[in-house]
Order: sequence, then C-alpha cells, then structure tokens
Amino acid sequence: PSAEAVAATRAREAQLVKPAGALGRLEEISEWLAAWQGKAPPTVSRPLVAIFAGAHGVASRGVSAYPASVTRQMLDAFGNGHAAINQICATFDVGLKVFDLAVDRPTPDITTDAAMSESECAATMAYGMEAIAGGIDLLIVGEMGIGNTTVAAALSCALYGGAPEDWVGRGTGVDDEGLARKAEAVRAALKRHEGHLADPLEALRRVGGRELAAMAGAILAARLERVPVVIDGYVASAAAGVLHALDSSALDHCVAGHLSAETAHRRLLQRLELKPLLDLGMRLGEGSGGALAAAMIKAAVACHTGMATFAEAAVADRG
Amino acid sequence: PSAEAVAATRAREAQLVKPAGALGRLEEISEWLAAWQGKAPPTVSRPLVAIFAGAHGVASRGVSAYPASVTRQMLDAFGNGHAAINQICATFDVGLKVFDLAVDRPTPDITTDAAMSESECAATMAYGMEAIAGGIDLLIVGEMGIGNTTVAAALSCALYGGAPEDWVGRGTGVDDEGLARKAEAVRAALKRHEGHLADPLEALRRVGGRELAAMAGAILAARLERVPVVIDGYVASAAAGVLHALDSSALDHCVAGHLSAETAHRRLLQRLELKPLLDLGMRLGEGSGGALAAAMIKAAVACHTGMATFAEAAVADRG
Repeated sequence: PSAEAVAATRAREAQLVKPAGALGRLEEISEWLAAWQGKAPPTVSRPLVAIFAGAHGVASRGVSAYPASVTRQMLDAFGNGHAAINQICATFDVGLKVFDLAVDRPTPDITTDAAMSESECAATMAYGMEAIAGGIDLLIVGEMGIGNTTVAAALSCALYGGAPEDWVGRGTGVDDEGLARKAEAVRAALKRHEGHLADPLEALRRVGGRELAAMAGAILAARLERVPVVIDGYVASAAAGVLHALDSSALDHCVAGHLSAETAHRRLLQRLELKPLLDLGMRLGEGSGGALAAAMIKAAVACHTGMATFAEAAVADRG
Repeated sequence: PSAEAVAATRAREAQLVKPAGALGRLEEISEWLAAWQGKAPPTVSRPLVAIFAGAHGVASRGVSAYPASVTRQMLDAFGNGHAAINQICATFDVGLKVFDLAVDRPTPDITTDAAMSESECAATMAYGMEAIAGGIDLLIVGEMGIGNTTVAAALSCALYGGAPEDWVGRGTGVDDEGLARKAEAVRAALKRHEGHLADPLEALRRVGGRELAAMAGAILAARLERVPVVIDGYVASAAAGVLHALDSSALDHCVAGHLSAETAHRRLLQRLELKPLLDLGMRLGEGSGGALAAAMIKAAVACHTGMATFAEAAVADRG
C-alpha cells in the first residue's frame, strides 16, 4: 500500500464540504483504494466482475437443489445477458467476464479423490491471474458452480476447523435431507484427506475446486498489479481464505462486498477479518453482491473526486 | 397497496433464473414497489432526491459544530454541483431538487417559542407535497439545516418519550459540551411546550421545524400519488415519525434507506418499524444515504424486469 496516496487522499477528504467522517465507510473506501492503487485520487473507471465457473464431482452426491447441468446453462445465460449479474453490471456500468474452468469436465468427487492434481491446481491458479488483464482498476470476484458451497464448506472446515455442520448451509436451497448430505460429504472428504490438509494450498487442491483455485490466483495477482478486490459471497470468501491462511495480511487489498445469507459466511468473514459492505440477505453468487458493493465504491470515488472543498464552495468550516 | 401487482410480481419473480429468494431484499423491494406503484413490473425510471432545507432559531444555542450561515451556503453548493449528494445523484442518474424553506428567516427558538404557527405549519406541509410533482416514480426524502438534529431529537422525544439524552447525538460533530447543550435545549423545549405535545402534528408545529413539516407533507402526498418513498437519515425519520404516531401503517409505502451513525437513529427506526437497507456509518444528511439506497432499488428493478425466466433461458429448474 502507498502511504503517500493515503496521505494525499486523507488531506483532500478533510477539505471537502462535509463534516469530517460524515461519509462513513465511503471515506474509508476512498483511502483504501488509494492505498492499493498507489494513486490519489483513486479511480473506479474500469471495474470488472469476473465470474469463475467450475463443475464438481461431489455434485452427484445430492448436495444441491439443482442438477449439475445448470452450471453450463448458466454460462450460456451470462453470455446472453439473461442473469441477475448482467442486469446489475448494466445498471452500474461494470464490466463482466466469465471464466469457464472446464465445466463440462467435473473435478473428481472430493469424498474419494483429490479435486485437482498439483499441476492442474497450479495451472488453474495461473489462469485465474488473467482476470486482471486489460487495465482494470477494481476486480469483483464471483463464481458459479453447482455443488461449490459444499466444496467451500470442506475447504473452510479444513482451514479453520470446527464441525462440518458449522460450515454447510442451504446453498441454492436444499432441504434438511440435502443439508445433512452436505455435512456428510464434507465429513467424508475431510476423513479421506486427513493428514494432508495442514498446508492451505494442499487443502485447496484436495477438497477445493477449480473456480476456487482460479479465484485465489486472481486475488493474488490483483495485489501484485495494484488492483483492489471486492470478494463476493461464501465460495469466493473460502477461496480467499486459502491466501489468508498462508498470510494473515494477504487480503488487505480486499473488501467483502456483502454478507451472504449462506449461514457460514458470517463465521468465515470473521476469520478473514473482513467487514462486509452490504447485508441484503442475498445468496445468489455470480458476483451479484460484490457488484452491488462496487456501486457503493463508485459513489465513494465520485464523492471524493467530485465534491468541492470548503474554500472552493465558499462554505464556512467549523469554528 | 395493490394485491394484484404484488401477485404478478411474485409470479414473475418465481420464474426468473435464480434459486427462489436468492436475491434477498432485492426481491422484497420489487414486490414493495409494485404494491405501492400499483403496477407490475414496477419502475424506477424517474427517481428524485428532494432536499428540504430549513433554518432554526435553536441553532443560536451552540448545538452545532457549524455556524447557521452554512445552511444557505450549502444550498448554493447543491446548486453548483459541489456537494456529496450531487456526485451520488450523477453516479446513479437520480434527479435532485432542493426546497428552500425560508432558510434566511429561521424559525423561533423552540426552547422559548413554537417553531411555527398553525397556518405556517400547514402551508409548509402543503409545500412539501409538491415534491412529488412531475411524474416521479421514487422519492428520496432528505434535508439540510444547521441545528436540525436538535429539533429532530426534541420531536422524537415528544413522540416517543424517554430522556433527551436518548435522542440527541453528535450531529455534524459536536464535542461533549455541545452534546450537553443539545440535551439541555431538548429538555428546555419539552418543558416549555409541556401539555401540548400529545398530538403529533402539534408537536411538529411546536418543537419541529419547517423542513420536518415539509418532509411529512411529501411522505403523505407520495402515498396518495402511489410514489414509494426512501427515508434518508435521522431528521427525515423524525419527520416520518409524526405520520407514524398518527397511524402506525402510515409508512408502509416507505423504506429506510440507511442506518445513520447518528446514535438515536437506530432507536427511532425501531419505533417506526423500518429496517434500513444500508449501514455505512454515514451521517451527512442531504439525502445521501437514501440516494445510495435508491441505487440498490434500481438494481432490484433491473433484475426483476431484465432477467430471463428459466424457460426463456433454457435453464433447468430444481428437480
């Protein structure tokens, strides 16, 4: 982070026609953006939602309310402008790119096998790094993948401990039996890979999935390229957790876009030390909560750059 | 509210390519808009932020961190596009109108006199009703007025009881002595008007202010013209409280845009039975938190109207 850009942003913020601190988190956001973009004022001229899509062998274990075929169908929907994220991006003029991580070739079932080989996991992380190509100045990390809340729960449980029940939720809307099957799948996966989960990257490879590996790569690359990141929901947060488990400062360039209605998201964000911007009871994925948060970030930058100073506006400052 | 429009909105919502309920409050908002606009789908094509500005005799009692002259200066800033609300409205394509309620002629000090005569209070409410002219489909109610958090505290205390300390906060940023002066002013005002505050409209007239009367009028008129309302912060909520005290269903066409950092706002929203959309630690007024909430409402309508159905998108629904 750039201390110079922070100082310049703070100095400007103090002169704008408003009581100090009156814009609350919007002011914090301007400062955070400046710190990580390394420039003052910060910009949000080219924000991008990246949706990472993957398919999961564990989906065959009845852990989702929807058939696995929906992942491919939703990719088509994104392409045709049919999904919620298309409407949100259009409303706020945010770019959208979809990364197809071989959704027609599901990863092996994590209850019996590792999700990825070492080379595949590394290659998928590298592929995710490409999300930041093209000169974007804000990255919103989202995902799509039937079965991936189960995988995210297994990974979270591997990283942070606790019982499988602490980390599974209703995802797309499973019933009580489905929820029990999710917990059972997580338990089986952790048992199968016992003794190999202490290294966060190895946990990602074994009980994660391709979109989680790609998101971890994207978040990592964004930091190196000075692109601040908005993390969407539970699955994206689990991917971010791999980096956080490796280095507790690894997500300082990230903000949590929203608190998902997926119940374990609150617990996970507490572990990641991230305070969500929004809390709208959403649990859709697709980067949808993150894209709404990006609109707030746009407003923060608009205020920071567009407002006049007390002197320019000829308004009396406090006595 | 239109039961027909609600039913049509709910029927469409159930067919859109997402798990039922996955958009959380965005779905509730679409339904609420449809109910009060009396049409399905609802629209947010002409949203308007109305800023009601007033001046207060009580400001001379050292209850604000800023001189009273700032109210007039901020009106100029709004006109010149210099303020935070100008940037937020421009970012989200929301209209902005400022209602100058004689800011060069402050109301009498509420600790010694009534803020308004009966005819002035009625005329000011009627003037506020003009906010909904011009075919708008969403009204965001905001305000500006040095001293008006003191007036809002006095009115809230009159409407809902408790101690003056329960209802005063730091407003634009007063220190401990300023906060004590605010509580003292509220106590003095309630003492002065004791025995005349049981009628909410009489309380508004005596310990309120012009922008509060105008906001109450605007909220009332909006309902009659089927325009849903976003209430901004603490002062706007206190104005809404007058209507709520008269009839507990009077704000059913309103949503609270955000939870302000002004400490008593949480207590007041609980009394009004309103759950804020956003919580960003803001305390600026100007309709700023409400305008950010309007962006979320725009996104809700964009999703509701723009998304494809499962059938249109050829996506498999749950089994």
